[in-house]
Amino acid sequence: MRMYDLIMKKRNGADLTKEEINFMISEYTAGKIPDYQMSAMMMAIYFQGMNEEETAALTIAMANSGDMLDLSAIGGTKVDKHSTGGVGDKTSIALGPMVASCGVKIAKMSGRGLGHTGGTIDKLESFEGFSTGISSKHFIDQVNRIGISIMGQTLDLAPADKKLYALRDVTATVDNMSLIASSIMSKKLASGADAIVLDVKTGSGAFMKKEEDAFTLAKEMVTLGKHAGRKTVAVVSDMDQPLGFAVGNALEVKEAIETLQGNGPKDFVKLCMTLGSQMVVAGGKADTLEQAEEMLARAIEEGTALRKLAEFVEAQGGNPAAVYDTSLLPQAAIVEEICSEKEGYIEKIVCDEIGICSLILGGGRETKESEIDLSVGLVLHKKVGDYVRVGESLATIHANDEKKLGVAKERFLKAYTFCDKQIEKSDFIKGIVQ
Amino acid sequence: MRMYDLIMKKRNGADLTKEEINFMISEYTAGKIPDYQMSAMMMAIYFQGMNEEETAALTIAMANSGDMLDLSAIGGTKVDKHSTGGVGDKTSIALGPMVASCGVKIAKMSGRGLGHTGGTIDKLESFEGFSTGISSKHFIDQVNRIGISIMGQTLDLAPADKKLYALRDVTATVDNMSLIASSIMSKKLASGADAIVLDVKTGSGAFMKKEEDAFTLAKEMVTLGKHAGRKTVAVVSDMDQPLGFAVGNALEVKEAIETLQGNGPKDFVKLCMTLGSQMVVAGGKADTLEQAEEMLARAIEEGTALRKLAEFVEAQGGNPAAVYDTSLLPQAAIVEEICSEKEGYIEKIVCDEIGICSLILGGGRETKESEIDLSVGLVLHKKVGDYVRVGESLATIHANDEKKLGVAKERFLKAYTFCDKQIEKSDFIKGIVQ
Repeated sequence: MRMYDLIMKKRNGADLTKEEINFMISEYTAGKIPDYQMSAMMMAIYFQGMNEEETAALTIAMANSGDMLDLSAIGGTKVDKHSTGGVGDKTSIALGPMVASCGVKIAKMSGRGLGHTGGTIDKLESFEGFSTGISSKHFIDQVNRIGISIMGQTLDLAPADKKLYALRDVTATVDNMSLIASSIMSKKLASGADAIVLDVKTGSGAFMKKEEDAFTLAKEMVTLGKHAGRKTVAVVSDMDQPLGFAVGNALEVKEAIETLQGNGPKDFVKLCMTLGSQMVVAGGKADTLEQAEEMLARAIEEGTALRKLAEFVEAQGGNPAAVYDTSLLPQAAIVEEICSEKEGYIEKIVCDEIGICSLILGGGRETKESEIDLSVGLVLHKKVGDYVRVGESLATIHANDEKKLGVAKERFLKAYTFCDKQIEKSDFIKGIVQ
Repeated sequence: MRMYDLIMKKRNGADLTKEEINFMISEYTAGKIPDYQMSAMMMAIYFQGMNEEETAALTIAMANSGDMLDLSAIGGTKVDKHSTGGVGDKTSIALGPMVASCGVKIAKMSGRGLGHTGGTIDKLESFEGFSTGISSKHFIDQVNRIGISIMGQTLDLAPADKKLYALRDVTATVDNMSLIASSIMSKKLASGADAIVLDVKTGSGAFMKKEEDAFTLAKEMVTLGKHAGRKTVAVVSDMDQPLGFAVGNALEVKEAIETLQGNGPKDFVKLCMTLGSQMVVAGGKADTLEQAEEMLARAIEEGTALRKLAEFVEAQGGNPAAVYDTSLLPQAAIVEEICSEKEGYIEKIVCDEIGICSLILGGGRETKESEIDLSVGLVLHKKVGDYVRVGESLATIHANDEKKLGVAKERFLKAYTFCDKQIEKSDFIKGIVQ
């Protein structure tokens, strides 16, 4: 088998066989197929596409290219959740304890963030002493004992995807739906869960700007999960403005805690309930979504979800007191209101820009090596459709540097557009694909 | 300017500017753009194509990427000829002296062959002592003195094309008409001639199997030549069977000599007259093609073309006596007839296969390092449309190795297909593009 012939075959519009895709991925991972042939192949795939079987074969080949997380020592159905990412996405921090307190096992590998705000691991480090650098044994034991653990990425999961993505990133071959779907799903398959609930975002703050594309991606990923024998469902939700009100690491943790206390923002609560009920059903702890929602609502009402968070934080070396007293979380030195200079209904918030404001304040990483400031960020008070008067506060900004605060504030104000008429709010949950 | 943005632009179907193409080629030649980005670009061009301006800009950028042959010290219009290659193509050896004897200056850089049979330089080395390893001064002086010289490729002409072609060759991005045309024309432009006559072959022995494709390529190249301010014309001719009768280096030289003696094969004479008259007109030595053809016919009749060949051979250190006594050319030890095992009209000759027979005998190079045997090859006696009886000779085979002879003979016989009915011969000259 020669890579040249495979490029030619795909270029001419034919379908690659499973054997051909396996050959391509294993040889590429081993460094035996050069980047210049693989990038030509990726561009050919961009133009000719891949069918369902090809995409599944690629995904499985990439999932098998490195370590696989072995969760067999954990009893019951393991459910994983994946978000395509957005601004203010603190979902895992509230959702994990909610679902775990309903008896579903959460055994998750997670990463740090690059860009906008931090990743789940960065956010969790807002609890003093919290560590994801735990051993596999600690990880497995903890899940068996308390039902939830999040571990840093110590294993080399799907290295073929890592190598291929880096190549696609510099050759303008990222935005092909089959390639995006297989990239995400290869890592999820290698992460070992039995069921996967996908949180696919759409809107100005999401990778998929168009709702139609988000649904296409969701469908591709659900199909791939099923091909690999995993229960898979995707929720498509709005990311046209930040999720909830808080943007920034410790601020988002605080909002997640408030949510577990029953005081969460409406959109965020809706997302947690929608994803959570899917996870509880997938995990076999409820027969219907309604039943699952009731269980989740009770877990919040009765405080079991909040206690589960505290238990989780403590199990990984963090200070659980901060769960009950959020003033123990990192606090910024400067806290100021950003007041509106205009009057009217908020027509639009350029979502990415709010993320960039947090990044400017120090809450995100510009490069992999950047240090992150967990205390900074923004807490919005007004979102799309709200009426605002001149001088009224749009958001509270948390900063540790006057200069950065000035830059972020100016940029923040430019991200808002106002209009005279009341806005019809679009549905927050766009649909569910299964 | 970033290569990434250019790939994206082309991928999305937009046209690249001249500045963008210049940047891409100069940075790639300098090793500052990696192969993996260039191969993605080539695949994007394969799918999205290039318009006339883009193709011209690419061609000129590649022509300017290295040395340029400076022919300004030669008076008059310099005319170059280029063939897209085929089996039995000894054109330059007869055509050069024919045209030079009409007063047109032939200053040509030429290469060695790879595959099938040798290149023009290999063939010319059939004259004992002949050398193309001459200095630029010798080259220019010789053209000024006798009107013709052929020099080996000492200059680094169009290195961007060399590098790009090698990349395309391993990434399945060769067969795009604009890229093929710009590859050929970049080298021709760097070769410095004022006018270019292109010999575009079509058929089973040609790179362009389909006549339609040959015309498309011819048109692209003529347009490119004009863009670069060179008089350019293309002749599309048949390569569905070998050109003339002789295939193999010294055997082809002998056939070229016979042609200059007035005894050439009909198709080969036709090609030389068609290309030659275009060259004589382009060189300003005749006003009309008819007039040019008369001059060329006279050059053969009066022996001036043959004498020009002898003069040319002598000027580059070769033995001119071989022009008048072809038994002085390299001779193979074994000369045998290949007799037909079938009876009927010859319906088809798989042209490439005849070239491969010569290669098997030792007349071509399998790799760049192979030694070539100038004496071996085949002289056909029967071509498409001829009637053949069982036992009648199809060709004479010249070999130096019994085993190779056996393999070549068997393969040769398989290349012929016979039928019961008389065949209508197709036109040898398919058309002229200017």
